[in-house]
Amino acid sequence: MGDPVNLAQKLAQVDEPFSPKIVGRYNDNKLMVAKVRGDFVWHAHENTDDLFLVLSGRLTIDLPDRSVQLGPGELFVVPRGVRHRPHAEEETHILLVEPAGTLNTGDSTERSPAPEEEL
Amino acid sequence: MGDPVNLAQKLAQVDEPFSPKIVGRYNDNKLMVAKVRGDFVWHAHENTDDLFLVLSGRLTIDLPDRSVQLGPGELFVVPRGVRHRPHAEEETHILLVEPAGTLNTGDSTERSPAPEEEL
Repeated sequence: MGDPVNLAQKLAQVDEPFSPKIVGRYNDNKLMVAKVRGDFVWHAHENTDDLFLVLSGRLTIDLPDRSVQLGPGELFVVPRGVRHRPHAEEETHILLVEPAGTLNTGDSTERSPAPEEEL
Repeated sequence: MGDPVNLAQKLAQVDEPFSPKIVGRYNDNKLMVAKVRGDFVWHAHENTDDLFLVLSGRLTIDLPDRSVQLGPGELFVVPRGVRHRPHAEEETHILLVEPAGTLNTGDSTERSPAPEEEL
């Protein structure tokens, strides 16, 4: 059994934006922290929803027909198959939940997926 | 597709402690907010891990061999089958993730499970 995970302490060990790091597991899911700064690629996950919770900063998620904006303590679930593009003007810290094995770039070929690394 | 969920705004609509309310869905899981105040019952979930993230306050989770304490921005996953008892001296706000259909009281018969209600 693991120990409690302090998300801010984990995030202090992350430098690169859009490079989620695994900080825990819940059933078959990986719990990840990530920094967002600038624009990510448009992508979709064919087989899973995508859970974003903002811890600090401000996250924009572009969707096919609108954009949603999230501040600290706000969460959003991108349904499976829906194309989306996360971005942030200021450095933003998030918690992500996705099934283990999910590529952060989904079906995009514009960018290499981040490796699945534990912190 | 849902809208962004502000967890603090949802929690402002909750009065009763240990009565989680559903604020979103992620794959087959329910995302819930709950207030914790006082002692809950010892229980276990045979078929699922149990994800706790503290949003405000201080949560103690008693486990068979130790207790863990969580403050804001700290998460803990109770592995499936492990008996645990959440409690808090001061009012504490948490985000919970569990598969839909999971009873908040697990295998305990000491207390009636909270209904699965959406906020």
